[in-house]
Amino acid sequence: MRFIIQRDRLVQSVQDVMKAVTSRTTIPILTGIKIVATDEGVTLTGSDSDISIESYIPKEEAGDEIVEIKQTGAIVLQAKFFSEIVKKLPTDFVEMEVQNQLQVVIRSGKSEFNLNGLDPEEYPRLPQVEEENAFKIPTDLLKALVRQTVFAVSTSETRPVLTGVNWKVENGELICIATDSHRLALRKAKIEIETAHNYNVVIPGKSLNELSKILDDNNELVEIVITENQVLFKAKHLLFFSRLLEGNYPDTSRLIPAESKTEVIVNTKDFLHAIDRASLLAREGRNNVVRLATLESKGIEISSNTPEIGKVIEELVAQSIDGEELKISFSAKYVMDALKTLEGHEIKISFTGAMRPFLIRPLNDDSLLQLILPVRTY
Amino acid sequence: MRFIIQRDRLVQSVQDVMKAVTSRTTIPILTGIKIVATDEGVTLTGSDSDISIESYIPKEEAGDEIVEIKQTGAIVLQAKFFSEIVKKLPTDFVEMEVQNQLQVVIRSGKSEFNLNGLDPEEYPRLPQVEEENAFKIPTDLLKALVRQTVFAVSTSETRPVLTGVNWKVENGELICIATDSHRLALRKAKIEIETAHNYNVVIPGKSLNELSKILDDNNELVEIVITENQVLFKAKHLLFFSRLLEGNYPDTSRLIPAESKTEVIVNTKDFLHAIDRASLLAREGRNNVVRLATLESKGIEISSNTPEIGKVIEELVAQSIDGEELKISFSAKYVMDALKTLEGHEIKISFTGAMRPFLIRPLNDDSLLQLILPVRTY
Repeated sequence: MRFIIQRDRLVQSVQDVMKAVTSRTTIPILTGIKIVATDEGVTLTGSDSDISIESYIPKEEAGDEIVEIKQTGAIVLQAKFFSEIVKKLPTDFVEMEVQNQLQVVIRSGKSEFNLNGLDPEEYPRLPQVEEENAFKIPTDLLKALVRQTVFAVSTSETRPVLTGVNWKVENGELICIATDSHRLALRKAKIEIETAHNYNVVIPGKSLNELSKILDDNNELVEIVITENQVLFKAKHLLFFSRLLEGNYPDTSRLIPAESKTEVIVNTKDFLHAIDRASLLAREGRNNVVRLATLESKGIEISSNTPEIGKVIEELVAQSIDGEELKISFSAKYVMDALKTLEGHEIKISFTGAMRPFLIRPLNDDSLLQLILPVRTY
Repeated sequence: MRFIIQRDRLVQSVQDVMKAVTSRTTIPILTGIKIVATDEGVTLTGSDSDISIESYIPKEEAGDEIVEIKQTGAIVLQAKFFSEIVKKLPTDFVEMEVQNQLQVVIRSGKSEFNLNGLDPEEYPRLPQVEEENAFKIPTDLLKALVRQTVFAVSTSETRPVLTGVNWKVENGELICIATDSHRLALRKAKIEIETAHNYNVVIPGKSLNELSKILDDNNELVEIVITENQVLFKAKHLLFFSRLLEGNYPDTSRLIPAESKTEVIVNTKDFLHAIDRASLLAREGRNNVVRLATLESKGIEISSNTPEIGKVIEELVAQSIDGEELKISFSAKYVMDALKTLEGHEIKISFTGAMRPFLIRPLNDDSLLQLILPVRTY
């Protein structure tokens, strides 16, 4: 293997596949990055066996030569050293050459690194994914879907299936649901799908977080292929594989109240900041709990009280309050997490009493729903 | 106590005095910030008993009203909560009021905090410092003096005096020296001093680091007052007190070689980057050691070799090499730390053989000197 490559492209690809590499692996070869040079370009692969990422660097792009392949071949290099080295190379082009006995030479300017490589034949094969039933969504929508749900997955391994996000495809619609049993996030989106195939799978939250980091903010389509135990996301020059979680995801539809007794419409940012301030003193006390009470004068009052430290009280003007008056307590963190996913200026909060879960939704938008269980204090 | 104050000024002052406050203190009142309102303005104080910082907010500045004093008085507030609260207040002005029994009300917009205060009478008095023998240096020079020496202090408590920087004032010159016995940093500067008084004290490295963070980058004069066991830095609206370290600082003058056998002049940045690259593979091996060898052709070679991982070798063109040829090994970290303090384009490195300490200095500038002990490998 021998090629000369643009340093910045190599750095970018190495950074991308590094997202899948961990030093905490029991399979030594997975601490490395696999590099394969063919006549068409160079492919890098990183994997922790749950997530695998493949980044492809074509020989040329838009008439610009990115890689000059002198000899095809393959090698595996220690990810930790290789990623540090490429970042610090002195010139814009890098030559990589495999010599005898898995010795790799990396040259850039007057700098020459000799690294001990690993046998590429020992690197595990990526999962084979049948591409029959793919569907497509724009990258920015995919990132929004992830951001608006993944924060609500469980961090506890007591019920492993809850550490993932439930993805359901039904009638040309994708529904993403995450819950840790104290709160629930639900986001729907129309998708481009050719077949009438339905899916119901659970994707690990960690995989979705890494996927989101690696994808640029643009509206190019990402192709998504779901199989029995794997999901594959195909973006430009990038393949992202994740295993799926086993087990049945609980049916959450009956948790979402269909009716409400009190409806409040309020500015998202004002509400978020008021809760943030009230939580400053609550953090130390029991479980970061703040209180909300409706006022007679079309306002709400946000407060918290931690006797050892002090108390805080703030009035907020609501755009409208309909229905019964209400006093309710909740985790400031859960409500702030939910509010951060809501992009609109105004939100509707639907309560069904102080002991029942409540819903936060953007005004006039049914695609996103955040559900939160209150805390019993009154 | 009751006053209305510009929020941004309050936030800035709280941030400044917070640098001295630690939660790891055995004196409970020192977890607080002392606030004193007089007819002239508001003073905030934070202290961990080693460092004390006082920030003064005048009633008005350049015709702009900053504080409106309604009633003078004093209070101590928990630093952790107070600092978080002021940052997140909703409006540009803040009202603070002490009510009965050390209860404090903080109002901003429709937000109202009630905090339990502590008795200001229990807050320790700041050290009394006689201001007879003050000298002055511009802020930016003071920050440079600190930055160019403090990194070389010892982090080990075996010889406590080495965790500080030795400040000597002799004949209108300030000399700052730090050493951890593997390396030494020395910086000199002319100062404005009225009396012929000489000083020789040791200031804790930690104090100098905090001082440097708190001072803005400008050339206003800082007044420095040294007493037997305290140093006081007086900047605009700011007093910074630090205790001094006890014990005699070792005489380091005999450590610095007066003559050299090999002199290399090289570009600072090129040299730094080459050592950085060579150290990438050395970090894992024994003590981050890289090698330097002079070449016949007015060049130097930087290399490192860690058999399990690989090796790196790089040639660097020197501006000049005079004297004996040389092979020497040293800690990449120590040399990089030293190089980062050198602002000039070119540096002179003076060697006296592979086993003797070597000096790095800016070309044509005697005010700064970095000394490093080599590592024996050849």
